[in-house]
Amino acid sequence: MRIADYTNQTHPRVAVDAVLFSIAEGALKALLVKIKKGPFAGRWAFPGGLVQVGESLDDAARRELYEKTGVQDLYLEQLYTFGDAQRDPTAHTVAVAYFALVPDPGRTLHSGDKYADIGWFPVRQLPQLAYDHNAMAAYALQRLQAKLGYTNIVYSLLPREFTLAEIQEIYEVIVDRKLDRRNFRRKILALGLLKPLPKTRRGAHRPATLYTFTRRSPMNVEVL
Amino acid sequence: MRIADYTNQTHPRVAVDAVLFSIAEGALKALLVKIKKGPFAGRWAFPGGLVQVGESLDDAARRELYEKTGVQDLYLEQLYTFGDAQRDPTAHTVAVAYFALVPDPGRTLHSGDKYADIGWFPVRQLPQLAYDHNAMAAYALQRLQAKLGYTNIVYSLLPREFTLAEIQEIYEVIVDRKLDRRNFRRKILALGLLKPLPKTRRGAHRPATLYTFTRRSPMNVEVL
Repeated sequence: MRIADYTNQTHPRVAVDAVLFSIAEGALKALLVKIKKGPFAGRWAFPGGLVQVGESLDDAARRELYEKTGVQDLYLEQLYTFGDAQRDPTAHTVAVAYFALVPDPGRTLHSGDKYADIGWFPVRQLPQLAYDHNAMAAYALQRLQAKLGYTNIVYSLLPREFTLAEIQEIYEVIVDRKLDRRNFRRKILALGLLKPLPKTRRGAHRPATLYTFTRRSPMNVEVL
Repeated sequence: MRIADYTNQTHPRVAVDAVLFSIAEGALKALLVKIKKGPFAGRWAFPGGLVQVGESLDDAARRELYEKTGVQDLYLEQLYTFGDAQRDPTAHTVAVAYFALVPDPGRTLHSGDKYADIGWFPVRQLPQLAYDHNAMAAYALQRLQAKLGYTNIVYSLLPREFTLAEIQEIYEVIVDRKLDRRNFRRKILALGLLKPLPKTRRGAHRPATLYTFTRRSPMNVEVL
């Protein structure tokens, strides 16, 4: 790694980077883009870019994600700000990291002109990423695991209608352990956040009742 | 409040602001400085300043606090990054907020040339501050209260030797409620973080045993 040369820089720059999580094919995945130019050319990274003058940090994160994924209705939360002077060899860049959640997007992504490629990667088998993005990924996963325990934000990873088995699977995939089926159902139903729908889904087993969230905005509740 | 005019700005600037807490005279206090110039002249604010090229965010926060207070051995933690475009009417400035803790400093402060005045203010009776610093104060207090419940960071608010009554008073002042004396002592001693010293302090009541922390670095423990 080259040491940064800031000779011509008068102020650190401000960027946003977004760790977008989703559940697909039974795994927790994160969206990565492949960098085209510069010292990290060919490496994967979280999408991001410089904050524009007059733009809020949240807006900048939403804009970057919208430009990269087309997704607009996502859960977004500021994670941590990474500011080590050497994290970007081209210029001292302070990165305000966000984490974001979407239901299984299940569709083709377009990387646009800025990046060479784009794709969903299993969070627990990420390649060596550009910048300090592996540390960012670890921090985001830790926050997601913690928040799943004391908030209702799992709603942002689920489609509008789902079974209790599906919500449990998301918990198990993220906290990375099996949960007792009966205890989990009792707890999650006792919170009063789920409403049963007058319909079922047929699968390999007997038909399962479909549920929906009574509220799709974040709040603190003790789930785990 | 004027609306920001960014005509000549090409990038947002990056600053650090530090919410320094201490306990003095039985109250939780925060260090404020009085602004000399610009649209907030005469208003109080948390000390802060622009991040220098090549300087990490943590280093910038430590530097600002050292320049303002002379304190070097303090607990420091990144809080949240405030980036609304209108928060500073002179230029779009992204502020990485920190919160810091020191034992009762009990000495005169010097504001230096940059500020008109400096002082400790009760956190629950702050004046109307410059920028978005009242929101920053609320966020910092919330974080401090939460962290007191699940970490050992109270050590950074105490002198090297203290009584159990003194540690309980700090908890009560910060969480803003009375704690059961017997329960609190049982819990705090069961954590194995405190070591009794072979000496006592004489006061209005019978002599109280002095304690010290076995470890003065942050860790997660369930205190409350």
